[in-house]
Amino acid sequence: MSVLKQLQSYLRRKKIDALLVTQPDNRRYLCGYSPHDVSIEESSGVLLIFAKADPILITDFRYLEQAQSDTDGMHIVLYKRGLLSVLPALLKKFKITTLAYEPYYYLHSAYLKLFNFCRHEQFVLVDFSDYILKRREQKSHDEIVALQRSVTLNERVFHDVYKTLRVGMSEIEVAIAIENSMRFHGAERPSFDTIVASGPNGALPHAVPSSRRICENEPIVIDMGLVLGGYCSDMTRTVVLGNVDSKTRFIFRLVRQAQLCAMDKLKPGTSCKSVDKSARDIIKNGGYGPMFGHALGHGVGLAVHETPSLNMRNQRVLKPGMVVTIEPGIYIPEWGGVRLENMASITQDGYHLFNQDTTFLDV
Amino acid sequence: MSVLKQLQSYLRRKKIDALLVTQPDNRRYLCGYSPHDVSIEESSGVLLIFAKADPILITDFRYLEQAQSDTDGMHIVLYKRGLLSVLPALLKKFKITTLAYEPYYYLHSAYLKLFNFCRHEQFVLVDFSDYILKRREQKSHDEIVALQRSVTLNERVFHDVYKTLRVGMSEIEVAIAIENSMRFHGAERPSFDTIVASGPNGALPHAVPSSRRICENEPIVIDMGLVLGGYCSDMTRTVVLGNVDSKTRFIFRLVRQAQLCAMDKLKPGTSCKSVDKSARDIIKNGGYGPMFGHALGHGVGLAVHETPSLNMRNQRVLKPGMVVTIEPGIYIPEWGGVRLENMASITQDGYHLFNQDTTFLDV
Repeated sequence: MSVLKQLQSYLRRKKIDALLVTQPDNRRYLCGYSPHDVSIEESSGVLLIFAKADPILITDFRYLEQAQSDTDGMHIVLYKRGLLSVLPALLKKFKITTLAYEPYYYLHSAYLKLFNFCRHEQFVLVDFSDYILKRREQKSHDEIVALQRSVTLNERVFHDVYKTLRVGMSEIEVAIAIENSMRFHGAERPSFDTIVASGPNGALPHAVPSSRRICENEPIVIDMGLVLGGYCSDMTRTVVLGNVDSKTRFIFRLVRQAQLCAMDKLKPGTSCKSVDKSARDIIKNGGYGPMFGHALGHGVGLAVHETPSLNMRNQRVLKPGMVVTIEPGIYIPEWGGVRLENMASITQDGYHLFNQDTTFLDV
Repeated sequence: MSVLKQLQSYLRRKKIDALLVTQPDNRRYLCGYSPHDVSIEESSGVLLIFAKADPILITDFRYLEQAQSDTDGMHIVLYKRGLLSVLPALLKKFKITTLAYEPYYYLHSAYLKLFNFCRHEQFVLVDFSDYILKRREQKSHDEIVALQRSVTLNERVFHDVYKTLRVGMSEIEVAIAIENSMRFHGAERPSFDTIVASGPNGALPHAVPSSRRICENEPIVIDMGLVLGGYCSDMTRTVVLGNVDSKTRFIFRLVRQAQLCAMDKLKPGTSCKSVDKSARDIIKNGGYGPMFGHALGHGVGLAVHETPSLNMRNQRVLKPGMVVTIEPGIYIPEWGGVRLENMASITQDGYHLFNQDTTFLDV
């Protein structure tokens, strides 16, 4: 049964007549409509799922052609003055009395308007659970294939640019080269702003590429990902042009050991926090515990950051089809950082590593 | 009096003890903090403004260095588990009983948590008006200077790339060249996804650059903007490589005439809808009314789309310091489109045109 049919069946069980899907990745997941929102304040459309009828995509004329080519015959309704200018007629036509919406991707100000409208029309408005987000966690075979393609292309881009890395290039030059290569190779877009953080700049896990020029013998953190066919990749390599001194080598090995130990734990039934702990303990025992200040990993799919989070508090357990990053790091103010990140899917009895690249993983 | 002090005085008049500023441009406007949010679901911080004390920036460790360098000594509080893990202590410390927040940039799900927290702690939670958005409409002298710099750099980038335009280049190649040039020239980022829409693709006002190769004698719509010092530029030129046939020339002239007529109306006291109407009437009289399907223009500042909107319904009047785009267009399915867009600020008795470039404005 398709995901859409499962959702419709879920709506019927919950006695919900229709659901407004506003979250862009959920929208794409359910009907293939690909535009992302410029921002939540500038939506590119809403998917209206009926419990007992075919869904309708509601958008404006700017997106009509894209909607037609993405959704393969889905009924499309255009608005000129926002969702609420067309929703009443649709709900009446389909005799909807209970309408659900996604509170985690709905502005409070927009909610207030929707709420007033529903009260006026005597519709019941209900919060929709995180059913779709949860459903998205466990990837289908086709989704795993799409993620593999995304990772493989990302590694190809990394290799192309890595070959050209030279002392004296600026971080921003490298980031531009990476993002250009992504687009030339057919990626939809980077899945997040590419990070190139050299020397001391590597001490910031989310550094923004600067005009700093890369030096010899220093760690350079490169965190990059792309979107291909809707699906995201996310990979970090830390590389050195020149020699790796003993402190750097020690840190590389500690981070890599943490990564390998965490990967060993990946299988259905393991809790997210215990995967995080296995990596964190190694870094702690190596004396760098306080320098690993973020979660070990996160889910990846249509969004580059999804559930489940592999952090020290998440008690949920891994399930087949989940896809996560494993990205331990050590960040030392003024010195720099080392982060190593791979992506893996959970299989029936273990995991599948998407990455082939081993650049500077085992120094 | 600084904008911040004006806001604090407004809060006191409204008997609001503190305001949570979540909207990223508002945050930057009030304290200079520059990171944008990855998405509303991944905030890079919240600014807490007190009616009677200095503001505090609340963020996580990833943004600490940026926060320090942007805000010049502002008190910074870091959270590990989200805003609500640190807010109670802060509100108690400052004896806050009435807290305002921004409903137009607050997820409904996050609002529910905040609401429950406030009820539990017996704080009063109030919707904050659009005071800051309205305040941002009328730019200061420094902001006008920043916008001029942004437009000037954007035009420089346009010229650099326009010189290299050749038949046979793909739209995406041109878009990449534009965005690279922006970054090399020091722009923070494009202010929106660059549009390069050639031939029939120009019929979509918001076309996404494709692999289509540019042909001779067809209109190519290039809509581009960048962020410099936080401020956005936004410009559209339609260019032709080769000859302009008589139909294309007629359409160019009609659009340009609509633009010039609208610009003539720009001065304090004119209503937004009458500016829109003056352009729309010309296109209508030229026989292409239904092919101009969007608003004439929009405000620009820290955001590339701000109020006021120059559309056919907006009764608000222009005021000195407002900055708007004037961008009429004609879109003909299968044939293509012509859009011409400049930016202007409203002065005491008229307007100031930011643009110098005249490429293909008067064919």
